[in-house]
Amino acid sequence: MNTKRNIYLEMVSIEAARQTLFDRFSGCGTGTEIINTAAAKGRVLASQAVAAISSPNFHAAAMDGVAVDAHVTFGASEDSPKTLEIGKQAQWVNTGHALPQETNAVIMIEHLNMIDDARFEIEAPAFPWQHVRKMGEDIVATQLLFPRDHRITAYCVGALLSGGVFSVEVKKQPKVLIIPTGNELRQWQEIMPESMKPGDVVESNSSVLAGLCEDHGAVPEVHPMLKDELEGITSAVAEAVKGDYDMVLIIGGSSAGSMDFARPVISALGEVYVHGVTMMPGKPVMFGNIEQTPVFGIPGYPVSAIVAFEEFAGPLLLKMQHLPPDPRPVAMVNPARKVASKLGQEEFLRVKVGSVDGRLISSQLPRGAGSITTLTDADAIIRIPETVEGISADESVAAHLLRPLSAIENTVVITGSHDNTLDLLADQVHKTTPGTGISSSHVGSMGGLMAIKKGACHMAGAHLLDPQDGSYNISYVKKYLPDTPVNAVNLVMREQGLILPRKNPDQIRSLDDVAAKKLPFINRQAGSGTRILLDYKLKELGILPGDIVGYENDEYTHMSVAVAVLSGRASAGLGIRAAALALNLDFIPVVTESYDLIIPEVYLDLPHVQALLATIRSREFKDRVLALGGYGVENTGQVLF
Amino acid sequence: MNTKRNIYLEMVSIEAARQTLFDRFSGCGTGTEIINTAAAKGRVLASQAVAAISSPNFHAAAMDGVAVDAHVTFGASEDSPKTLEIGKQAQWVNTGHALPQETNAVIMIEHLNMIDDARFEIEAPAFPWQHVRKMGEDIVATQLLFPRDHRITAYCVGALLSGGVFSVEVKKQPKVLIIPTGNELRQWQEIMPESMKPGDVVESNSSVLAGLCEDHGAVPEVHPMLKDELEGITSAVAEAVKGDYDMVLIIGGSSAGSMDFARPVISALGEVYVHGVTMMPGKPVMFGNIEQTPVFGIPGYPVSAIVAFEEFAGPLLLKMQHLPPDPRPVAMVNPARKVASKLGQEEFLRVKVGSVDGRLISSQLPRGAGSITTLTDADAIIRIPETVEGISADESVAAHLLRPLSAIENTVVITGSHDNTLDLLADQVHKTTPGTGISSSHVGSMGGLMAIKKGACHMAGAHLLDPQDGSYNISYVKKYLPDTPVNAVNLVMREQGLILPRKNPDQIRSLDDVAAKKLPFINRQAGSGTRILLDYKLKELGILPGDIVGYENDEYTHMSVAVAVLSGRASAGLGIRAAALALNLDFIPVVTESYDLIIPEVYLDLPHVQALLATIRSREFKDRVLALGGYGVENTGQVLF
Repeated sequence: MNTKRNIYLEMVSIEAARQTLFDRFSGCGTGTEIINTAAAKGRVLASQAVAAISSPNFHAAAMDGVAVDAHVTFGASEDSPKTLEIGKQAQWVNTGHALPQETNAVIMIEHLNMIDDARFEIEAPAFPWQHVRKMGEDIVATQLLFPRDHRITAYCVGALLSGGVFSVEVKKQPKVLIIPTGNELRQWQEIMPESMKPGDVVESNSSVLAGLCEDHGAVPEVHPMLKDELEGITSAVAEAVKGDYDMVLIIGGSSAGSMDFARPVISALGEVYVHGVTMMPGKPVMFGNIEQTPVFGIPGYPVSAIVAFEEFAGPLLLKMQHLPPDPRPVAMVNPARKVASKLGQEEFLRVKVGSVDGRLISSQLPRGAGSITTLTDADAIIRIPETVEGISADESVAAHLLRPLSAIENTVVITGSHDNTLDLLADQVHKTTPGTGISSSHVGSMGGLMAIKKGACHMAGAHLLDPQDGSYNISYVKKYLPDTPVNAVNLVMREQGLILPRKNPDQIRSLDDVAAKKLPFINRQAGSGTRILLDYKLKELGILPGDIVGYENDEYTHMSVAVAVLSGRASAGLGIRAAALALNLDFIPVVTESYDLIIPEVYLDLPHVQALLATIRSREFKDRVLALGGYGVENTGQVLF
Repeated sequence: MNTKRNIYLEMVSIEAARQTLFDRFSGCGTGTEIINTAAAKGRVLASQAVAAISSPNFHAAAMDGVAVDAHVTFGASEDSPKTLEIGKQAQWVNTGHALPQETNAVIMIEHLNMIDDARFEIEAPAFPWQHVRKMGEDIVATQLLFPRDHRITAYCVGALLSGGVFSVEVKKQPKVLIIPTGNELRQWQEIMPESMKPGDVVESNSSVLAGLCEDHGAVPEVHPMLKDELEGITSAVAEAVKGDYDMVLIIGGSSAGSMDFARPVISALGEVYVHGVTMMPGKPVMFGNIEQTPVFGIPGYPVSAIVAFEEFAGPLLLKMQHLPPDPRPVAMVNPARKVASKLGQEEFLRVKVGSVDGRLISSQLPRGAGSITTLTDADAIIRIPETVEGISADESVAAHLLRPLSAIENTVVITGSHDNTLDLLADQVHKTTPGTGISSSHVGSMGGLMAIKKGACHMAGAHLLDPQDGSYNISYVKKYLPDTPVNAVNLVMREQGLILPRKNPDQIRSLDDVAAKKLPFINRQAGSGTRILLDYKLKELGILPGDIVGYENDEYTHMSVAVAVLSGRASAGLGIRAAALALNLDFIPVVTESYDLIIPEVYLDLPHVQALLATIRSREFKDRVLALGGYGVENTGQVLF
């Protein structure tokens, strides 16, 4: 392996890069085709649609009744009714029928006094054109139905057919070839999850980008995966631009490493316009022109790939079809805490958003570009401009919503300690009360109480041990939330203990052993109930934090601690039995603790909070908790204080 | 034909009807199926999705560089660099590679001082886990990825594949059978527009409802069209409910007429729950239960059909899939004028919306349920509740938006006189400036000036003749808009005259003949420039309005006047030559007039107004106007005053 590297072209801003993209491909667009109107929903008109016929194309009865010439009815009144005869002065008509010749009005059947089968009396005159849909009332032949570039909806199909337009000229959907590259990638079609080896990564970007292409009106095609080899990628791209693709996306290898081939491929076959954009994630995006086809190098980290697509490839696809940009709805939110950000790059911050007490509160998700769940968990994206260094807490900022505001408003925001049963609760609430959601952020028990204090959540999960009396949570609530009336509702009792590698190779029996054998330990973050428990236990045993190797390495969830043990990063960690069981690890119990939801009284009556409490108290939820192992439900749902 | 009629069941409110629907079909839902995750975008999870593997499932290099055990780097500094050897204390890694055994940190390639191919110096220590994506950083095996009922997006596909979930259990899409009925209907597949006879109507509802079914996650199937015959419809429905359809929609015949068979069919085969809802349009909607399948009678007027679907069938389809309702965004608008509405029925008022001077102004479209263009033209729907009798002008009311607010804000609102070139202008602006739209309402020239006065439009189309001096518009603007600085820009010069049936069967030479021969005339509404012209000409000729038969019958557009002549409703009307040419009618010129756009100066600099003016002044627009015939472009685009 060598150390030869590409270098980025000069980095440019998102705006400058998009300007270059649009300028260089200003003429590019797809052709047109003629298709049946009935199949045209979602397509874009390539030429204006003009009505071929009027609708109705005749004078039509608008009511059930009789058609008459209004003049024969003039003079009818209650005092001197007029008698008319079917077949002579009147004709039966139903709604929608063409008016017979020589008639110009309809009398509703309700207003006829039948004398016999053929004759009836009326007590009021009809006025001309009463209850008649006149020819052309809806559509007049030759009128413009829709201008070019109009996107056809289901409603439009109705207007087009009614106007006699049975086929339409529409823009062809752009065809996009997606080429995933990367030696480490495995195609899901060819592996079983359980047989994946370290270093294997499931190739998922091509499916995500294919979905996004569809969402942008394009037709994607995924090329078989390629290895990181210049020749293979070059010949695939060379072939693609000769085909009828309107765009090529090379996924992976867009960076400046020695094994990054997107740049050399595009340079060799055409011209690179932009390499490197001052944004995060997605910085290594690149694009250029090969034989008039736009070719993109899309970074391989999943969030980078999505941002690169949505900022550049997606907008160009819309432009090719003359579709307007479809910006996400924006809402003003207040970050729960200060957000730092680098000057000189635009950051796409993924956040959860909760509606608490009439305010929208955002909490930041992890920033790693490799973490697709930061996007699927997110309710919104806050874009922090290049020129801004960060956002202070409680500053009001624009958030681009990924979920409808109505869904966000039906979501119970739980902030605080992590427990595996919160996932289960989220699923169970969906089952019992569709439309209600749970959004949980894991910032530790103390973080949860602080979030309540700031009005940033509806409830906090906490398991804060008071070493004085062995009680949970109550003394902390008194101390930190003295002015907030709350209820504490037990969610579960749970076993905390040492999570150890399978079969306990180091023969650990207690925390003493961990210290004595100098085994690497994985800790939880300061402020978490588990960290408080650890510190209490260490003190009890007379062990100094410094005696624990790795005391300074911390994780934010029980599952992350268990993964650290599973992967050999640590030989032990303190966490819940359910996490050890989930990953089939060994476990030595240390304590059974109360994990409670601390709920300010003002939120107790909210319908989604009520739905949550009902779910917690249901038999089905408790049974599912017990099935996880490591939990007790004897207090579940009880109001403790 | 007989007069036997059904009667409606007791009419119920929308809310009560929907409650009945949801209660009676509370248990109904579709089954589940297992499909490939890569093909699951848009589908709804039937069971929770839990990660099978962690992502990454190994410790991965997050940068290109060398992997080391951090401990061997401790102590390195600028003053005393450390030398490491590739293959011994360090291994080359690229981003994404698994960390080699016994390493726990990555040093970026930029920070290596290469001594030779195998050795390098570092001037700073690495800390453990630096530039490493730890196992499970994104996804931990066993974690809940998405709860049941989650709708899978393109992003979700990425998270599922990354978590080793290659197939998912999803809800089956509901299958809907759509049965169009009606003797007057013709299938578009079987006719040519030009061969349609009076009484023929193109069957379009089935295509519209099929599109709406798709938009609600369902799979529609359209049954061949049926005649209004009890037996045929009964046997089709009986067969359908035995098949695997989850819903049946009978279009047409849901009213209470003698030829309305939806009610008898459902009664005979099952039970009718609701017939008649206090809403407009859509009142005759009905539904019932046949062998546990919901069967709807959908009214045949296109707007009624859509409202009936969207209020009842659509929400039930979403509920079957546990999808949340997807309400349209709401904006507060001010109606340009008073809206009347009947007590006791909820009305769905279609409106155009324009953003003028920071306010959203709505103008009402025609209310006829038979007019599909009232929906395709609409920007929003205002729902007037049963308990409200109307809306006063300038009252602020909620409008449910059919187009994004951003599109509405890029729309030039033109209110006033009607001219055929406005359609052409709308199409041409789309071509030259995609994203810019025109919304034109036809309320006559005087109505346009009043709209300017109220701040309800960006410009008014007017051709108001001053009989004193033969000038157009200027004296009216001075009189009615004394305090509003405006520009008048000529759109076209156009010929006004008598529109007559083909070959002029009544041998009309002038208005004198129309009066003398007592021929039925079709007039324009009061306040229109054409009405003012007529009145001026009649006065000039000494003809009294009472001498013109049909003086009191009016229409709102030139095309409607032309259609009235074409259909035999009238023997003559006053209008523009272009309307006569469009329908191939005869025409006798009366005057050449100036049709101008009156634009308040404050709107002149708006980008979409600028785009419009540029389009008007373009050669291509003028050429297209000339091609219509009956127009002159010698003043087009000029500022007249």
